[in-house]
Amino acid sequence: MKINQLPKYLKEVDGELWFEEFEVEKKNLKITYKVNKVLSYLKSPYQEIALIDTAAFGPCLALDGIMQSTSADGFIYNEMITHIPVLTHKKPEKVLVIGGGDCGAVRELSKYEELKTIDMVELDEIVTRECIKFLPNISGGANFDKRVNFKFGDGVQYVKNTDIKYDVIVVDSPDPEGPAKDLFGEEFYKNVKKTLNSDGVMVCQSESPMLHRDIIESTRKILKDNFKIVKTYVAFVPTYPGGLWSFTMASDVYDPCNIDVDRLPLNTRYLTKQIVKSCFDLPNFISDLK
Amino acid sequence: MKINQLPKYLKEVDGELWFEEFEVEKKNLKITYKVNKVLSYLKSPYQEIALIDTAAFGPCLALDGIMQSTSADGFIYNEMITHIPVLTHKKPEKVLVIGGGDCGAVRELSKYEELKTIDMVELDEIVTRECIKFLPNISGGANFDKRVNFKFGDGVQYVKNTDIKYDVIVVDSPDPEGPAKDLFGEEFYKNVKKTLNSDGVMVCQSESPMLHRDIIESTRKILKDNFKIVKTYVAFVPTYPGGLWSFTMASDVYDPCNIDVDRLPLNTRYLTKQIVKSCFDLPNFISDLK
Repeated sequence: MKINQLPKYLKEVDGELWFEEFEVEKKNLKITYKVNKVLSYLKSPYQEIALIDTAAFGPCLALDGIMQSTSADGFIYNEMITHIPVLTHKKPEKVLVIGGGDCGAVRELSKYEELKTIDMVELDEIVTRECIKFLPNISGGANFDKRVNFKFGDGVQYVKNTDIKYDVIVVDSPDPEGPAKDLFGEEFYKNVKKTLNSDGVMVCQSESPMLHRDIIESTRKILKDNFKIVKTYVAFVPTYPGGLWSFTMASDVYDPCNIDVDRLPLNTRYLTKQIVKSCFDLPNFISDLK
Repeated sequence: MKINQLPKYLKEVDGELWFEEFEVEKKNLKITYKVNKVLSYLKSPYQEIALIDTAAFGPCLALDGIMQSTSADGFIYNEMITHIPVLTHKKPEKVLVIGGGDCGAVRELSKYEELKTIDMVELDEIVTRECIKFLPNISGGANFDKRVNFKFGDGVQYVKNTDIKYDVIVVDSPDPEGPAKDLFGEEFYKNVKKTLNSDGVMVCQSESPMLHRDIIESTRKILKDNFKIVKTYVAFVPTYPGGLWSFTMASDVYDPCNIDVDRLPLNTRYLTKQIVKSCFDLPNFISDLK
């Protein structure tokens, strides 16, 4: 790939290649990664997809210049967004992942023998293909559990139109920019609720409590208007701006204060039985979230 | 201040000023902050001291181009490095802070009525003077509690030569580069132990478990060779590369599993009674630290 073909977020500085990421929206903070090699760079009908091998965090996926998954810390995000809702539900069998193109979420879900169906509705098939090829640390490569079903298409339309009911729905969305914007709106969450069994549990990533407090609060408001129990939890995700990341879960029946830690699979790299509980202990400066 | 006088880590890009920080040592990751204004920039006998007002995190202190304290998240670091050792000690009266030039640590310590003496040995008086002036969110400004005593000088020499004994010693050092390197060596920690009462507690910042695992492990080894109880705990510090930050405490008598959470002052912004305990629940990927 010639330098003059590189996207604007890949820059050559003093003979080194650097990936430059602006903090979403306010654009007053950048994280910049030294790049060993551009593994793949292409445009799908939806977005620019770059797989880059970085010196600090290994192979990474970036969409439209925003870092999504890194080999070094992708497991933290993927463990947090899957194990917490599955353990909160008392007897989950059918799980839906919306988004999750890097396949890290379905890989974590496959660790639960009790699950019978793991559906994944990802908009951009090319993202998934590229992550299977270049991010095996996250996707696990091409050998998926036979319970995993890929349904490539628009998650917003899927929950609007499907008649299937799920026990757990994981909304694994990118930042609320471009095609993902609808994944943060009320109509979408009403359809998520419709697509859950009456005792279902849903979870979404709700951005940084440091930098995007408005997004957490608007997400929590929508969920509180539609579910009886709404709880936000946090984890370290070093490669996301702000470091501390939030997830918000909702259910009409199950409260995570009764979470069943003993069902946690043994082979997690971030989560321990203690953290499954303590991730809900919010620091004072965000415990007053509306 | 004219642009041609700016240090190399302050760069003008398209008419905007940016502060560019390289991750220490490996230099394969950068965090870059949009700068509203350079509040002060000067060279002391020890280092370059820059106070800059950033768009994302407000006024910040940088030493030799490395971000040390920000108005937005400085409280997290300062609460973690002070409250945990003070609460671990059963009846602390005399506390020593080594480093801590931004005065955030002594400000937190002042919240404990039970403390009688709070000594601070900072190498560089000019850092403290500048933080009092430009970082009031962290330093609290010039109105210090009357128990606080500033003893400007070399902390390494201080613990070698003093006859005073303390109940708690807080080693609030910058990264192990330049003048701070000795603060990570065995001779220094032996002298810290000598300067503690027999039931004393010490704590140091032990860098990022993601990016500087070697530093945590070498620090833990030195402490384990010199103290009976050594425990590492973690917190989110968004503006440090890697997001997740570690602290390591040591004592011959007090174990933090018996920490007295009820003594936690009410006016903390990060710490809650739950987090005082759960900060010791390390994620699986670092729970195998040597």
